[in-house]
Amino acid sequence: MRDVSIIGIGQTPVAEHWDRSLRHLAADAVLAAMKDAGIDSADALYVGNMLSGLLTGQEHLGALIADFVGLRGIEAVKVEAACGSGAAALRLGYAAVAGGLHDVVVVCGVEKMTDTVNAETTTGLVMAADADYESVHGLTFVSINALLMRRYMYEYKVEHDDFAPFTVNAHRNAVANPNAMFRGTITPAQFRQARMIADPINLLDSSGIGDGAAAVVICPTRMAPEYGNGHAVHIKASTMATDAVAVHDRPDPLWLSAAEISAFKAYQQAGVGPRDIDLFEVHDAFTIMSALSLEASGFAERGKATWLGQSGDIAREGRIPICTMGGLKARGHPVGATGIYQIVEVAQQLRGEARDNQIPNARLGMAQNIGGSGATVITHILEARD
Amino acid sequence: MRDVSIIGIGQTPVAEHWDRSLRHLAADAVLAAMKDAGIDSADALYVGNMLSGLLTGQEHLGALIADFVGLRGIEAVKVEAACGSGAAALRLGYAAVAGGLHDVVVVCGVEKMTDTVNAETTTGLVMAADADYESVHGLTFVSINALLMRRYMYEYKVEHDDFAPFTVNAHRNAVANPNAMFRGTITPAQFRQARMIADPINLLDSSGIGDGAAAVVICPTRMAPEYGNGHAVHIKASTMATDAVAVHDRPDPLWLSAAEISAFKAYQQAGVGPRDIDLFEVHDAFTIMSALSLEASGFAERGKATWLGQSGDIAREGRIPICTMGGLKARGHPVGATGIYQIVEVAQQLRGEARDNQIPNARLGMAQNIGGSGATVITHILEARD
Repeated sequence: MRDVSIIGIGQTPVAEHWDRSLRHLAADAVLAAMKDAGIDSADALYVGNMLSGLLTGQEHLGALIADFVGLRGIEAVKVEAACGSGAAALRLGYAAVAGGLHDVVVVCGVEKMTDTVNAETTTGLVMAADADYESVHGLTFVSINALLMRRYMYEYKVEHDDFAPFTVNAHRNAVANPNAMFRGTITPAQFRQARMIADPINLLDSSGIGDGAAAVVICPTRMAPEYGNGHAVHIKASTMATDAVAVHDRPDPLWLSAAEISAFKAYQQAGVGPRDIDLFEVHDAFTIMSALSLEASGFAERGKATWLGQSGDIAREGRIPICTMGGLKARGHPVGATGIYQIVEVAQQLRGEARDNQIPNARLGMAQNIGGSGATVITHILEARD
Repeated sequence: MRDVSIIGIGQTPVAEHWDRSLRHLAADAVLAAMKDAGIDSADALYVGNMLSGLLTGQEHLGALIADFVGLRGIEAVKVEAACGSGAAALRLGYAAVAGGLHDVVVVCGVEKMTDTVNAETTTGLVMAADADYESVHGLTFVSINALLMRRYMYEYKVEHDDFAPFTVNAHRNAVANPNAMFRGTITPAQFRQARMIADPINLLDSSGIGDGAAAVVICPTRMAPEYGNGHAVHIKASTMATDAVAVHDRPDPLWLSAAEISAFKAYQQAGVGPRDIDLFEVHDAFTIMSALSLEASGFAERGKATWLGQSGDIAREGRIPICTMGGLKARGHPVGATGIYQIVEVAQQLRGEARDNQIPNARLGMAQNIGGSGATVITHILEARD
């Protein structure tokens, strides 16, 4: 298998883009990534997206976007794995390039969640859960996470306040990110007083949905010097694992076994351990997901992830900085696009282009994208090139 | 890249399965394919599906089906390319195995189109077209094909009756296929008198939608002898190409350029030409699609594909048999599953297991799966093993 590198990145701001359709958002990101890579053609386009059918009445995004960005004719396909769709598309793009099927592949994550006419976003998001055994009973995606959080607080004797640092950290990091949706800081008091959404999840436990697109261009590492501006980032590991979709089907609902499998396979592939990771873009759709992901991925002991927040370890100056550009919480969570936003942000850090948010001497960055409440987990480890 | 073979096949009948949910249908096909291959584990599952979100409120099929068939934990993802979703999933599975990422991959196509509660199938199918420039004006997927057929009849001075042999042939071939939805023969007179759906497309120009699932297991050819019962079928070519989704954006709406690119790349990859193909599972969603596909793929001159029907060339005894198990028309068209049904049927022919429908001495079979009205085209050429 060939070594693979990211030679171009692009993103739109996450926002309520009432003036931009899904294809325009995707094109903005794809064309920015292609320009960044210095290419004007590609062998294939893989699009990560979850909700375009239900919310905008448009499937078939592969061909649609390929044509719209001037790549008519190439192989193009949509990949869906709920909120993990973006990184799942990268995983398949990685497979195609590493395996020798294609040389230059564009991977785009895109989601249009506001100003849609066909359905409510809540109806869409719960399609990540088990329709026959969860949502049919009235559970929403937030309420499933609320059950997990309540159980976590009970089992591990953790207070709701203990989750505040995840939100405070994410918002602090978003302030300097021009592509973030919420660029205001949040205090622990504001976190505590936020209105309840699905007890115990309040508004500030929850990431904000929005419209957005992000894209990367990948190619074999040995071809990377031909392109771009010498800022290639190496994909050192790419893994995907799954679990039961319905939370009640898991032997331990507080253990994300797919995150564990995916993360530890990634460590093995990269020849590193959690201690070697300089920053971690965690899938903080809800604060409880940050905690569960940090524990399953080996950054905290079971039930102790909130300690990382209280100790300052997750801050940019800390031992394992997370959500360095605002995370899902404050950058915003356009679901099918999120996985690629995470990759783009890790690449910004490893290229030394994160400006005010730069993690000094960042060499190894990890991104973990989660579909549903842990049923699909994709982990990538990226490495800075000398 | 490694040579890849199909070592197991499975399918459910196409029907109105009011007693089977989407996951049950998928499991029936996947477990049959795994049994046929003699395996009880796999490295990954790729699921081709178009409409599960809109029609059944369920996305995230990769993890859902992997868990339900006893493969919890493995890499699993849904692939969508409108009606080409099934073969697109195989294409990505092929890439993963050929490239060395995985050894044993299960590819499943599944669609549940009847007994759904959330939306009309017509609303779903038109998501294959351009939402902003086609369906917004009231075009349905049938009416887009009707415009193509009307134009074809005008340009090439072809009568509606000239399309009859496609339907007559498909129904004749479905009679002996226990998995086909419509197992009754059709006469040219019945074809002529069928009620109009979207002029000039009548009921018998149109494939029937239904519920169904089909699956294949693939692995490197050199590992194939370890599995199954010595009935491996070699994937000699796998290609995908795209075109503008909106028909009005194509320079020539009567020329499926994605089918041409995909087919001729496949011929090149396999080192063969159209004359070497012993049978062709064509994407006969409508009779006009059969004609356009046959022409773009090099089996007929422009405007002359209906001659292949009138001459008997498309019959099982003819020069280029098509729809040998009933095609989309008579086997039925569960859209995201269709591409894998085609592959399973070609494999049946090359394994000599097509019984009454067997094409004598079939060595090379081709399957072409089309998304939308030609915007995504995936072509596979399979070869019998000695």
